[in-house]
Amino acid sequence: MSEFEGILPAIITPMTSEGSFHEEAFRKVMEFNIEAGVHGFWIAGGTGESILLSDDENMRIASAAADQARGRVNNIMHVGAATTERAARLAEHAARAGVEAICCVPPFFYGRTDQAIAEHYRIVAAAADLPLFVYNLPQSTGVEITPDLMRRVQDRVPQLAGLKHSSQVFPNVRTFAAMGLSCLVGNHQLMLPALTIGARGCVDGPPIIAPEYWVEIWTAYRAGDLNRAETAQDRASRLWEALGACGGEFHAVAKAALSERLGIECGAPRPPGTSVTDEQRKTLRGIMSELGLV
Amino acid sequence: MSEFEGILPAIITPMTSEGSFHEEAFRKVMEFNIEAGVHGFWIAGGTGESILLSDDENMRIASAAADQARGRVNNIMHVGAATTERAARLAEHAARAGVEAICCVPPFFYGRTDQAIAEHYRIVAAAADLPLFVYNLPQSTGVEITPDLMRRVQDRVPQLAGLKHSSQVFPNVRTFAAMGLSCLVGNHQLMLPALTIGARGCVDGPPIIAPEYWVEIWTAYRAGDLNRAETAQDRASRLWEALGACGGEFHAVAKAALSERLGIECGAPRPPGTSVTDEQRKTLRGIMSELGLV
Amino acid sequence: MSEFEGILPAIITPMTSEGSFHEEAFRKVMEFNIEAGVHGFWIAGGTGESILLSDDENMRIASAAADQARGRVNNIMHVGAATTERAARLAEHAARAGVEAICCVPPFFYGRTDQAIAEHYRIVAAAADLPLFVYNLPQSTGVEITPDLMRRVQDRVPQLAGLKHSSQVFPNVRTFAAMGLSCLVGNHQLMLPALTIGARGCVDGPPIIAPEYWVEIWTAYRAGDLNRAETAQDRASRLWEALGACGGEFHAVAKAALSERLGIECGAPRPPGTSVTDEQRKTLRGIMSELGLV
Amino acid sequence: MSEFEGILPAIITPMTSEGSFHEEAFRKVMEFNIEAGVHGFWIAGGTGESILLSDDENMRIASAAADQARGRVNNIMHVGAATTERAARLAEHAARAGVEAICCVPPFFYGRTDQAIAEHYRIVAAAADLPLFVYNLPQSTGVEITPDLMRRVQDRVPQLAGLKHSSQVFPNVRTFAAMGLSCLVGNHQLMLPALTIGARGCVDGPPIIAPEYWVEIWTAYRAGDLNRAETAQDRASRLWEALGACGGEFHAVAKAALSERLGIECGAPRPPGTSVTDEQRKTLRGIMSELGLV
Repeated sequence: MSEFEGILPAIITPMTSEGSFHEEAFRKVMEFNIEAGVHGFWIAGGTGESILLSDDENMRIASAAADQARGRVNNIMHVGAATTERAARLAEHAARAGVEAICCVPPFFYGRTDQAIAEHYRIVAAAADLPLFVYNLPQSTGVEITPDLMRRVQDRVPQLAGLKHSSQVFPNVRTFAAMGLSCLVGNHQLMLPALTIGARGCVDGPPIIAPEYWVEIWTAYRAGDLNRAETAQDRASRLWEALGACGGEFHAVAKAALSERLGIECGAPRPPGTSVTDEQRKTLRGIMSELGLV
Repeated sequence: MSEFEGILPAIITPMTSEGSFHEEAFRKVMEFNIEAGVHGFWIAGGTGESILLSDDENMRIASAAADQARGRVNNIMHVGAATTERAARLAEHAARAGVEAICCVPPFFYGRTDQAIAEHYRIVAAAADLPLFVYNLPQSTGVEITPDLMRRVQDRVPQLAGLKHSSQVFPNVRTFAAMGLSCLVGNHQLMLPALTIGARGCVDGPPIIAPEYWVEIWTAYRAGDLNRAETAQDRASRLWEALGACGGEFHAVAKAALSERLGIECGAPRPPGTSVTDEQRKTLRGIMSELGLV
Repeated sequence: MSEFEGILPAIITPMTSEGSFHEEAFRKVMEFNIEAGVHGFWIAGGTGESILLSDDENMRIASAAADQARGRVNNIMHVGAATTERAARLAEHAARAGVEAICCVPPFFYGRTDQAIAEHYRIVAAAADLPLFVYNLPQSTGVEITPDLMRRVQDRVPQLAGLKHSSQVFPNVRTFAAMGLSCLVGNHQLMLPALTIGARGCVDGPPIIAPEYWVEIWTAYRAGDLNRAETAQDRASRLWEALGACGGEFHAVAKAALSERLGIECGAPRPPGTSVTDEQRKTLRGIMSELGLV
Repeated sequence: MSEFEGILPAIITPMTSEGSFHEEAFRKVMEFNIEAGVHGFWIAGGTGESILLSDDENMRIASAAADQARGRVNNIMHVGAATTERAARLAEHAARAGVEAICCVPPFFYGRTDQAIAEHYRIVAAAADLPLFVYNLPQSTGVEITPDLMRRVQDRVPQLAGLKHSSQVFPNVRTFAAMGLSCLVGNHQLMLPALTIGARGCVDGPPIIAPEYWVEIWTAYRAGDLNRAETAQDRASRLWEALGACGGEFHAVAKAALSERLGIECGAPRPPGTSVTDEQRKTLRGIMSELGLV
């Protein structure tokens, strides 16, 4: 796969009832999505409980993902960590494991200069020597990736391919596209709007539950069928509003929904994340049934 | 005109060299835009120097706008003011003057409860008894108009027609549309994206300078011609980036650009707003010449 | 009075039952505070409903304040307005009326450059040629007055005396003091802390209700009696927490409390401000009685 | 030591030239501060490069700190981590190592409900069964610890002793104190102001370089000598403004300053943190020489 475009769901990290990585469920979620026509995955990112995972778990996930996909889709593996050294080590492993690209949040917790952020990306990208996607997730990192900062990264990092843009500054989609970057919009409700101003695709969590909804947006958009694309986006945009009404937190509901849909328990979020209650699970099942998802 | 949709430029308020309302230039800017095919105007709002105008000026502008348009387009007159009484008086006058609708920023400077904001809108709307557009402009007012607040206004204000949404929370376009409101997106770079998720049109300042760019987006979109609409949006999105490069502040550059384009001096912003320098004006003229606008 | 220091309550603007300026009540509130030992007033500012007043009302208030004080205390008159011209006209009048100093919020609603803000202050200060206090009130104006911006004002405005600092950036009290400015802290709970790092006094609304509480802080502080000053600050800090528990909005409760304490009705806030309910008024009276204020 | 009060510098984590924990330098920094009269340390927190350390390093630091102090001062060991399990494991070790208390940032990166945050603290505190200090550091964690959230923690966590308050909401110092909590203000420029409204002490990074400056504030304050306390605070407040003028980032300058002062190299920040340049180091040495610190 040479192009990073289309719908690339952010995959959850299923856990066993003991709270460790549930590889079988992970592979099943991947396969279900591949069969539905997705173009890749964003792995061990925000939806995948990212920095709650140990480095060892991150590496096991990268290996399982590459092995399961066997080149059929683009795996973009998250390697962000608190230190440059750890992120570079994860990047190096991801490349060895056989993913198609890496992605990385900027350094978090401590404010860093633009120069330090660019240098961080330079070292991490060099360790993998794969296409690199910057991960603009200011609500988690406290860092807004501006076009100016991105230009600095572009100057120093030959492997830079693009970014996942999960910030509120929506007009920057166009700016990033005009810079020659593959901008993947990080909001599942904004896939179609973003495509019309230059985004190449969408990365977000909810599509992992019903990938067919977003595949349909992509297909209609590529066919130039505006009306059909709008209808598809509207259906897709309503999905999470419906599921979220059960009341649990994001990771918990996403895992429970996939457990219901695929018939394999995907477990609970890692604490301090909190599980859905039995009642929330029951409500969720009812909502999914109404939507024809179970 | 019964539908509030399409491209409704936010019109500047031209000033004479003495700093008073320049009615002749105002009418000329309107006429130029009407001939270019716009569907209405957003008058004496943010672009029109709004709260820098006296109540008397606001009323003269409303009268001139209604007289010039003669029902050919939708005039949405801004009546926002610091007190409910002043806003209601302006609303009443706007109705008498013959505009098609009013718009109003929420109370600013002091934080108000949702209940007080809704009550403010109720009184102002009743004074005009015309379709009311809420003006969501948090960068100026400090108030984010959320869907929850909008529901409260909807419950109390029978005249409510929709809103101009100039906030960063772009996904709310869809939410407002789903509430049955006419959502006019307040960012000229996001007209096409907003239309794909339910917006009915666009209100912003830059279109007043080159209305044909945004008329083209609307025409292509209505024809279902996705490719042409994207091309049009891209051209439109680049306009202000080009003009703004001359270095002046927004109101000053917009007035200078229209002075150049229409051959009638539109004056300077009212202080504390600042004029363009002679050099900035010269640079601006050069940019406009390259774009074929003069 | 040559020094601007001590406790300068921000005075409310009493209204008649018809909603116009209630001069008799205003003078009574002033006199009560002067007798309690305050060192001045901050007039027609945030607490005084500022931008909800007409220019004519602002001028009547300035005249009444100067006449009532007769030089016994420092009157700092607010002249901030949306345009430079209006602010300058108010400044000129304030000087003629005989106040000791003026204060002015930075231009609000539209973002302005530091240069434009400094120029605004230059013109306004020149119109009065009285000591000028900048009014740092970012929650209302959207402008944080930083030390850098203040240095620019200091460079251009010979009349600059200091500022009221109502921002959350508390350590800047020290920075402003080190710049030779008279920094009046704008939070009644932080008078003593601010004095220990260089503030010259305090301006805020709650002291207008019980000025003796803050006079006591000042007296104890000047006597070097740390323990007594802390006790006084603690009593003062608890006042508004107690009164606010009645449930009304700030202006409404402040007016009602003074009505109760002085036996003259100070009226309601101007809409969109909202009055206290009868029940809130009754609760407030009960609280004040427990505190020995009525 | 039963009281957690006074000046408790946030200690840096010295590194060897290879980038690993430099225990000898760490002990030397502690001893220097103990001899200067500090009342404790805040260890492996923000100043100590916190989440850049491995769990193994965190444990080695806890052991070294307890061994070096031998009960002479209060060691408050930071055990915050991305998962509840890791934080609890660090807490358990810290207790075994013999520190006097633990501290912990709230869960970061993902937004959590107040309930989930309180539950996180309950588990972590139970694992150590030592006095717990909450670490309010919103600029790093994205979580503002409000009095409401703190009350919820207080309800569930019997070990709760207080908090380090490094947020901009300075008036909350008084609120936390009134809740019976030991509030340690997290801004070295605000030690004296905070003490006057109920804080019990100060925790911050700059005091680790010149602890005698803050010991003097404490001593003067306890003696009720307001004038001397203000003079001491002013000297202390100017320290970092002077040192920071050399141009490096906080961790780098703090380490370099201690290297200069104690004659043992404390190393560089862990990347993505960046070192001081040779020129910055030279400038720093000059500044310290002028201050009489070398």
